[in-house]
Amino acid sequence: MSIEDLLEVLGNPTRLKILRSLADGPKYLLELARELDLSEPAILKHLIILERYGLISSFKRDSKTGPPRKYYYLKTGFTVDVGFTDGLFDISIRRLEEPVCEEVESIAEELQRVKRIKNCVEAVEKVAALSELIDRELFKLRRKEASLLALKSEIYRYLGELLERFCETYLERKIAEWMILSQSRERLLEEVKTALNISDTEFKLIVEKLRSKIPYIDRFTI
Amino acid sequence: MSIEDLLEVLGNPTRLKILRSLADGPKYLLELARELDLSEPAILKHLIILERYGLISSFKRDSKTGPPRKYYYLKTGFTVDVGFTDGLFDISIRRLEEPVCEEVESIAEELQRVKRIKNCVEAVEKVAALSELIDRELFKLRRKEASLLALKSEIYRYLGELLERFCETYLERKIAEWMILSQSRERLLEEVKTALNISDTEFKLIVEKLRSKIPYIDRFTI
Repeated sequence: MSIEDLLEVLGNPTRLKILRSLADGPKYLLELARELDLSEPAILKHLIILERYGLISSFKRDSKTGPPRKYYYLKTGFTVDVGFTDGLFDISIRRLEEPVCEEVESIAEELQRVKRIKNCVEAVEKVAALSELIDRELFKLRRKEASLLALKSEIYRYLGELLERFCETYLERKIAEWMILSQSRERLLEEVKTALNISDTEFKLIVEKLRSKIPYIDRFTI
Repeated sequence: MSIEDLLEVLGNPTRLKILRSLADGPKYLLELARELDLSEPAILKHLIILERYGLISSFKRDSKTGPPRKYYYLKTGFTVDVGFTDGLFDISIRRLEEPVCEEVESIAEELQRVKRIKNCVEAVEKVAALSELIDRELFKLRRKEASLLALKSEIYRYLGELLERFCETYLERKIAEWMILSQSRERLLEEVKTALNISDTEFKLIVEKLRSKIPYIDRFTI
């Protein structure tokens, strides 16, 4: 699923409410319709879209009062990070990490210890403390992310100023920018060609020109 | 601007393309229409929406070939973080931090040093290195975020199991969960009342019941 698709799915307020509600646990159609105060067909329409994108799935469970019920549940776990400002548009999508990365291993170990506590009341207290710790870490991390993106934006702007001395056209400047800042150089050519709507030949010509002016560009093989 | 509004704005593929393009620098209507291969009215419709939400703004600049042109540009900078999985739905929105937080101060200082370099070619190299460093930091940070959210989700699930021993009804369990895990306790009552559609009296009754069973709940004044 692409980031664009995901943002489109999340961009619908009803779908967002359905996902939020299912994060609480599996639910059947009538339950969702009551909770969101919408008709069953209105909800079903969105459930089909969410299922098609692989965000939710369903299972049948017997009901005491009637025929088996179809329950929907959240299927995948992931994070989406969007950052944008003057000079920067940054979107990333990640699956929730399992197993966890080394930096949070101590928290993961503590959670396993808590799970072995026999006294339920004590376990509830420890779980609350652990949840608070995670929220504090997330808060710090997102502050740091916002700061890094602010700096990245400043770098883009400054590089733009620098490149004005080397580049004569908009195309030249864009290609130079991409070569200097792009992370995945393999995808570079395709991206540039699509975004700027230029041919392979034109691209190579500009790169040659840039090479003669900016030694840094020289190190990339196209 | 609420997170729901923002996701709705970003959920439209054309608006996303416009924002991405404006992150590159100010542009006028015809330029955007050509770049995105859409009619001017089609683009304008979205520009009006983006401007209404305060994401973009405009200024007039003289043109050499005709009347002054209206340029649109990105106005605000922010990050959006979405994380969801079974048991967890987490969305946060932050303004890009200015001034930067302590943890990235050394990178900010390095950027100021780079800006004082007189030799343009050397400055380009340093800027590229700094940009790479920031991208590495962002990558690590988002891995950590995904791990923390995976743990948070595990905590939610485990707390759900624990609470089944104390709680008889869905309402009881939801309120207990919120009291134990909610970050902003002041907003708690309003949130619960809206989300579960219950009265103040009913809420207080359930809290009293929970207090007698889970000492942890006892510490909150409602």
